[in-house]
Amino acid sequence: MYILNELVERVGGQLIGDGTRIIRSLATLEDAGPEQLSFFANPRYLKQLRASRAGAVLVQEKMSGDVSGAAILVADPYLAYAQLSQLFDWRAGPVPGIHASAVVHPSAQVHPTAEIAAQVVIGERAIIEADTYIGPNTVIGRDCRIGEASRLEASVVLYPDVWLGERVIVHSGSVLGADGFGFARHQQRWVKIYQSGGVRIGDDVEIGAGVTIDRGALSPTRIERGVKLDNQIQIAHNVVIGEDSAIAGCTGIAGSTRIGKRCTLAGMVGVTGHLQIADDTHITAMSLVSKSINTPGAYSSGTGLEPHQQWKRNVVRFRQLDELAKRVRSIELTQADKTE
Amino acid sequence: MYILNELVERVGGQLIGDGTRIIRSLATLEDAGPEQLSFFANPRYLKQLRASRAGAVLVQEKMSGDVSGAAILVADPYLAYAQLSQLFDWRAGPVPGIHASAVVHPSAQVHPTAEIAAQVVIGERAIIEADTYIGPNTVIGRDCRIGEASRLEASVVLYPDVWLGERVIVHSGSVLGADGFGFARHQQRWVKIYQSGGVRIGDDVEIGAGVTIDRGALSPTRIERGVKLDNQIQIAHNVVIGEDSAIAGCTGIAGSTRIGKRCTLAGMVGVTGHLQIADDTHITAMSLVSKSINTPGAYSSGTGLEPHQQWKRNVVRFRQLDELAKRVRSIELTQADKTE
Amino acid sequence: MYILNELVERVGGQLIGDGTRIIRSLATLEDAGPEQLSFFANPRYLKQLRASRAGAVLVQEKMSGDVSGAAILVADPYLAYAQLSQLFDWRAGPVPGIHASAVVHPSAQVHPTAEIAAQVVIGERAIIEADTYIGPNTVIGRDCRIGEASRLEASVVLYPDVWLGERVIVHSGSVLGADGFGFARHQQRWVKIYQSGGVRIGDDVEIGAGVTIDRGALSPTRIERGVKLDNQIQIAHNVVIGEDSAIAGCTGIAGSTRIGKRCTLAGMVGVTGHLQIADDTHITAMSLVSKSINTPGAYSSGTGLEPHQQWKRNVVRFRQLDELAKRVRSIELTQADKTE
Repeated sequence: MYILNELVERVGGQLIGDGTRIIRSLATLEDAGPEQLSFFANPRYLKQLRASRAGAVLVQEKMSGDVSGAAILVADPYLAYAQLSQLFDWRAGPVPGIHASAVVHPSAQVHPTAEIAAQVVIGERAIIEADTYIGPNTVIGRDCRIGEASRLEASVVLYPDVWLGERVIVHSGSVLGADGFGFARHQQRWVKIYQSGGVRIGDDVEIGAGVTIDRGALSPTRIERGVKLDNQIQIAHNVVIGEDSAIAGCTGIAGSTRIGKRCTLAGMVGVTGHLQIADDTHITAMSLVSKSINTPGAYSSGTGLEPHQQWKRNVVRFRQLDELAKRVRSIELTQADKTE
Repeated sequence: MYILNELVERVGGQLIGDGTRIIRSLATLEDAGPEQLSFFANPRYLKQLRASRAGAVLVQEKMSGDVSGAAILVADPYLAYAQLSQLFDWRAGPVPGIHASAVVHPSAQVHPTAEIAAQVVIGERAIIEADTYIGPNTVIGRDCRIGEASRLEASVVLYPDVWLGERVIVHSGSVLGADGFGFARHQQRWVKIYQSGGVRIGDDVEIGAGVTIDRGALSPTRIERGVKLDNQIQIAHNVVIGEDSAIAGCTGIAGSTRIGKRCTLAGMVGVTGHLQIADDTHITAMSLVSKSINTPGAYSSGTGLEPHQQWKRNVVRFRQLDELAKRVRSIELTQADKTE
Repeated sequence: MYILNELVERVGGQLIGDGTRIIRSLATLEDAGPEQLSFFANPRYLKQLRASRAGAVLVQEKMSGDVSGAAILVADPYLAYAQLSQLFDWRAGPVPGIHASAVVHPSAQVHPTAEIAAQVVIGERAIIEADTYIGPNTVIGRDCRIGEASRLEASVVLYPDVWLGERVIVHSGSVLGADGFGFARHQQRWVKIYQSGGVRIGDDVEIGAGVTIDRGALSPTRIERGVKLDNQIQIAHNVVIGEDSAIAGCTGIAGSTRIGKRCTLAGMVGVTGHLQIADDTHITAMSLVSKSINTPGAYSSGTGLEPHQQWKRNVVRFRQLDELAKRVRSIELTQADKTE
């Protein structure tokens, strides 16, 4: 629970209205009541802004006339909303201590301010720094390191030799450090290449639920500072993802590819192995990247959605496309011939 | 173990043969022996029907002449098979009680008829209704509610504030209620938007293995009554999936999209964010839906499979397709010109 | 720690240099120091080979002149590296015994040489053979069988009636034996078909992290000897994958499809249900296979990546492709007409 004045201070905005008003939570313009704060960041919701019963709204100055209750004027209302969202979060800070049911190896170092929840298993020589939270049923392998104020939710698995920086968040079901997919062929069978590289995760990285990040073959797989990964992403061995890149759900990146800084990959993108992707590259949903990208910009592959019957006819034509192009060339030549 | 008469009663069919025959399990036409029941639902298997050694077969009346053993005549043999399949299922009903190794918060309410398996962790104020089964190593966060006769298999994770209706099934490795992928950009970095909406799952929903359903940003993500989700599906924050829709494996749905009722999405479909998909829409495998769909029907994107070398030539032509179309237009104009 | 002579013996190569040199680990040509072994398998790295400080390098005979330190001459350096990789692996063999926190049903048979880690749950009548390792928090359902020298990492789930052969590896977060996605339609709702077939995994299969392999509807789903599955693969009910096939990450295979032997499926491939894929078939990344393949070879679908603005124009043309092809045909007819 906060009073408006406290929230205004946090975001550095200008208040129009009563600063002693109590705010208990955040809500959408439509759902917010008199004790809730909302925000207006998308012009599409102007109607909802005008009709909102919110106790206060984060808006740009130019919109102040459209707010009926209190308003906090800020340059970027969406950013201000993000900044305040942590205040109202359901997560409590870690409650220091190790649950009686957790199994912690005697050689592991767990900082006294860390919270180790029920049924956690921590391996030899693992280091768990201050103010960390390790959720129920999470398994931390030997020689792992968890940096300060990091948070691992329930049922995360860290194989041995996975290091996390500070303020890293890992959501449930994610697996860091499983073997990369490496095999040599021998007489029509596959010989396993045991993977000895670890995983290195920079500060302020967030990893969604059900993500897999494989350990490197010989040197580590690296996720650099500030990278944000959505759910069910697959990162193969020896991939490097550059600082502040963000990747949406279900995307997969094959081995040894290097993604640059500040890249965005939309959902279900595939990137094949051993590529270099330039900084500030953006890939749209469900595109396949099978060559290196040297020039920043937006890239796509695939076709657009269409009614199934129409699509079937076009797909048949796609299979004949090279032939069609040759026929057009031939027509052009014939036409040119006659014109001469 | 049942006698045929019991099974006939269950499906409301008509028996041809000895109703006291014992049936111990279900099997395919090919594998079934004298104490097994099979079904004939696909004309492709007529040969197998005629050769089957099954103790009895569920068939439509018109096929009764092709059955050598007993036959149960029903209007829809596949449906009758589905209805009987539960009788022979390997799942026992819940064995009431809480395993000694489970960690249940004192403020949680667990109905005395519920079975809480080994190593389960249940948080504050969670409510577990009658006849539920909570499998080994599953984690249920605080303020969750599990409706009557629901079944959570091993190693499921429910974050705080996830509500399940009645008769909901959640398979192993699924994670409900992780943070939605929400960030505001600030000086080339990402500021996390803490996600406070929960997840609401209706009655009779089934969720496959390795599924992720994120909590909403402010209001909950909603899966309505009767929805069936296959494995490894990703549902982003604030998605709504309408009643009785069914979604196949590996499909991903981005934030705030609303899928209508009775829709079917095949495997590996991608749906981008903030879309509206009409009731009774059907999307074929690996299609990308990037615009709202207002008209029910079947939709597709992508190209068909072809030999790799041929495909490579066509892909090159696809990149020139706009230019090719312009050339065709130009030819047409020239031709028209000459004809005049 | 090994001396070079020991390693030479293992791979059957010929040594140039001092056989008593100590090797402590494997490393890339770039990272290796005097106590590390490297390998040269890719001509692209010739510069790194010449500059390498590695204590020894696995090379083909023809490259021996480019090695400054010791060299082990072998026919296939990549294979030799694979064969030696296990020697330096971080995994210790199983430490026999059952952790005090594990919950093992009294009717389960656990071989005395097996290691059962912390918080493991093993169901009724499960059989765990010699020299197996069952990682922390893994759940093994009743009537499962784990063959000799198999290794299940942390947080694996095996539903009842899943059998693994010998030397099988299953990585964390994988779920074997969840219900196949089977429903009959009835009055616009879905009736669950309870899935009673199990899962059968052959010898020497490796299963990556976050993989789901559903149990069969009536008979088992089958993964044959030597198959290698990368992370986040989805295998639906009653699929059969033939010996020595290898499948890369995020690929999904729908129900009852049979993949042949020695096939390779690249990442994010989709295969629809009830298909037959011939032995020695290869599918490139993100292709959709929606028809059976009878002829071995390489197959693809999709379009290539291109700048987003250009792609948008081509996508519009793709929707008109059938019409474009008809227009070309019409032009050809007109032209032919005039030529006559």
